[in-house]
Amino acid sequence: MSTGPTHAGAAERLPDGARTGTRATIETPAQAERGAALGAFLADCRAALGDTHVLTAASAQAPFLTDWRKRYTGRACAVLRPASTAEVAAVVAAANKHDIALVTQGGNTGHAGGATPDASGAQAVLSTNRLRRIRALDAANDTITVEAGCALADVQAAARAAGRLFPLSLASEGSCTIGGNLATNAGGTAVLRHGNARALCLGLEVVTADAQVWDGLRALRKDNTGYDLRDLFIGAEGTLGVITAAVLKLQPMPAASVTAVATVDTCDDALRLLALARARADALLTGFELMSWYCVELIDSHFPTLRMPLARPGGATANGFAVLLELSDHESEAHGRALLERLLADASNEGVVRDAVVAQSLAQSQTFWAMREHIPLAQARDGLNVKHDIALPISAIGEFISSTDRAIAARWPGARMVTFGHLGDGNLHYNVQAPVGQDPADFLRAAQAPMNRLVYDQVHARGGSISAEHGIGQLKVDDLARYKSPVELALMTAVKRALDPHNRFNPGKVIAAPPVP
Amino acid sequence: MSTGPTHAGAAERLPDGARTGTRATIETPAQAERGAALGAFLADCRAALGDTHVLTAASAQAPFLTDWRKRYTGRACAVLRPASTAEVAAVVAAANKHDIALVTQGGNTGHAGGATPDASGAQAVLSTNRLRRIRALDAANDTITVEAGCALADVQAAARAAGRLFPLSLASEGSCTIGGNLATNAGGTAVLRHGNARALCLGLEVVTADAQVWDGLRALRKDNTGYDLRDLFIGAEGTLGVITAAVLKLQPMPAASVTAVATVDTCDDALRLLALARARADALLTGFELMSWYCVELIDSHFPTLRMPLARPGGATANGFAVLLELSDHESEAHGRALLERLLADASNEGVVRDAVVAQSLAQSQTFWAMREHIPLAQARDGLNVKHDIALPISAIGEFISSTDRAIAARWPGARMVTFGHLGDGNLHYNVQAPVGQDPADFLRAAQAPMNRLVYDQVHARGGSISAEHGIGQLKVDDLARYKSPVELALMTAVKRALDPHNRFNPGKVIAAPPVP
Repeated sequence: MSTGPTHAGAAERLPDGARTGTRATIETPAQAERGAALGAFLADCRAALGDTHVLTAASAQAPFLTDWRKRYTGRACAVLRPASTAEVAAVVAAANKHDIALVTQGGNTGHAGGATPDASGAQAVLSTNRLRRIRALDAANDTITVEAGCALADVQAAARAAGRLFPLSLASEGSCTIGGNLATNAGGTAVLRHGNARALCLGLEVVTADAQVWDGLRALRKDNTGYDLRDLFIGAEGTLGVITAAVLKLQPMPAASVTAVATVDTCDDALRLLALARARADALLTGFELMSWYCVELIDSHFPTLRMPLARPGGATANGFAVLLELSDHESEAHGRALLERLLADASNEGVVRDAVVAQSLAQSQTFWAMREHIPLAQARDGLNVKHDIALPISAIGEFISSTDRAIAARWPGARMVTFGHLGDGNLHYNVQAPVGQDPADFLRAAQAPMNRLVYDQVHARGGSISAEHGIGQLKVDDLARYKSPVELALMTAVKRALDPHNRFNPGKVIAAPPVP
Repeated sequence: MSTGPTHAGAAERLPDGARTGTRATIETPAQAERGAALGAFLADCRAALGDTHVLTAASAQAPFLTDWRKRYTGRACAVLRPASTAEVAAVVAAANKHDIALVTQGGNTGHAGGATPDASGAQAVLSTNRLRRIRALDAANDTITVEAGCALADVQAAARAAGRLFPLSLASEGSCTIGGNLATNAGGTAVLRHGNARALCLGLEVVTADAQVWDGLRALRKDNTGYDLRDLFIGAEGTLGVITAAVLKLQPMPAASVTAVATVDTCDDALRLLALARARADALLTGFELMSWYCVELIDSHFPTLRMPLARPGGATANGFAVLLELSDHESEAHGRALLERLLADASNEGVVRDAVVAQSLAQSQTFWAMREHIPLAQARDGLNVKHDIALPISAIGEFISSTDRAIAARWPGARMVTFGHLGDGNLHYNVQAPVGQDPADFLRAAQAPMNRLVYDQVHARGGSISAEHGIGQLKVDDLARYKSPVELALMTAVKRALDPHNRFNPGKVIAAPPVP
């Protein structure tokens, strides 16, 4: 470990930046050396960033030390808030000089603990929240150049002001940052049409492990000049470098979006509807979301103003699903609506769809989306649950759900399946709620590990992914090591060693074994 | 150099696999050792592939030793034709054991000499042309799994037979291979809608430098489990590993494609038409190609059956352009045609377009595309010319063309500008033909180096790319070293060293300085 031995006193002593006052314990020479290095690191950071942007007080640090889901709380020798790429490079140079590990953090909305420091107190958090400039918007090139700490919603708003769409969209868009979106290759609700964050990025600026600035801010649709470094930093969760800015692709703003909900008896029927919608609407199809009927009931009980306008398909005992479809049309709302209505009528005639409603107003359309987006909130109100963010070949999803549902029911009778997600991308949030009457916390404690294993084994057997859009962080490091082949782990380790030879960036995240320098 | 010292006798002596007969010169001990190693390598390859797939005779090797443009001719100790991934791995293992460099080659249609061995005779060509199986087609997942040596046209045909579109399309599709398309991240005519080869690939199988098989054949739209190795091998031109198979994305087959040609006075008008077409048709716009009027004249003189149905815009002395537009429609031909006609009528009313014709039949549509595709052939008939495959931010193209045209006219009066390309992607084939009356070969010899420099300087100053879709190969290795930043070159070198530590794969291509082990 390049972060060196840790000791309990570090976090309390180091915030002052100098070793003053009485110490309750006698330091070993190694501890004293380490303490001096940390003090010198903080002094260098203060010189580079100014005193007010090197946070050492516990109260100031607190918001940066616990992840969004409150699964992980770490400690940090400092929270650093650089305001420019040059300041980020200065921080990395100081970290190199004094051998301090850096944990880059954006909006701190990650789902895998990837931006939370470890418990040692020896790591520093590098917050991007002062890197907020929108550097350029080139409407004729349909690109925007933004700094890593820009909130996703601010990028969307800047694009909208120029008559353009930045299509990345996800629940935390008000607080998550573009840097975090890219570091985790975020997904969201528009992947079906526009791809993941990776597909929306043309160029990057990155501070490398040797504190250099890589200016890869290219605004080009085609560029075949050497290795694809951009896509290596994207999705690396801050373990290969610090993304400081990006060039993002913009789209023309559609004339209208039209939304519908439909009920289907089985997931296979939902897949038939998806195939029909893709064949008829192709790129106009911008959303295709699945919800098991238990999701609908959860929303109904926790958010009664959000009402599904359709009845449970197949009667009270059936396992039905609801589907949310969205078309985005560049011609007109009337054209999109007619296309969607024709599609649903034909699907109904073919027996694929039980019932369907096309939203008659923007308000109704927003209600449909709100139902979909309130599922995690309804789950949270119902108590803790076992979560899985998985992806499968679309052709395997129906069989996966029925077979895994059966396996879970056999082992945990009465467990309730909160199955929803971006069916058009093959991405399910396959979550499991405690049986009625069982304490959710007890259920989570007992079932989580074996259920994760059961579900991931089923996913792996079908060529699926154990993390579709949330990344690995610290949550799934052990799972990654289990399910990746030794060949792939060796390639990943070789890349990590090549680009971050001293394991400076986010050590312990993504790949389990830190490289030996 | 891991390929060791080369000597003139190697290619003649080694094909027999054993050192027999009289030798005209006395070998040094190093030469003898090298000869023994080559002999042992060939013996291992024959054991793995069978005698008939280890080509050593000059006549058998010849088709593999000269690139498509006939700019480079190399020599090889053998041309190896493995028929399976396991055989590729056996070849790499043998190459490791005996320290032989491997040059992977697909359809040998590259434009940058990337698949041609060097002149030493010490390298072996690893041909993928027996890796031709289509392993799977999953219509419900819209994916196809193919081996690297499949011709692009065969993949298109397999997709079509399943009612799907594989949208990658380029002039050499009858002979180029998917492995080569991926290794060079090929572009072509459908990038505007579907992206480059990289965007069409979900997963890869690769034989790595330590002769392991990385099974990354994932058929998923979302997968955030670690570093993006796939995109690192894509576009690496065979310098990081041997791509043996890939999972490719398929699209629903459109109901119809509708094509039009239009004339515009200036490139800026063409860009205005592009913006209008994107806003109105968005993803329905699948082609937007630009041709300078001199291209139209070239075709007219060499392929008189391909006639542009429109007059030169602005009269005989003006620098006009023709634009080819294509919409692909999933509703109906009538819908696509009406949309295209409305678009062109409005563009005409706004003064953006001089004149336009929508193809009235499939035959006329094919003629429009044939005109576009015959430009390089017409150029070739007219004699050699100075070629540039460049990309620019779309917003910079108009100014780039006028300013670079002026600079070229000032230095090479009378030079004729064969400017065409995929305007929607910002990708120009900015080629320059000798002035009337000047010998094309003389012109090429004298003008090529300084004109490349002039054009690339202009491209670089505007944040453009010196290789949009043809890659670096050996043609642009020196240019890459000139125009990439030291930071980026260092990152690329680190990646190369990490994944190919002994410089086994395609040494000397893409990055100039081979890594020191």
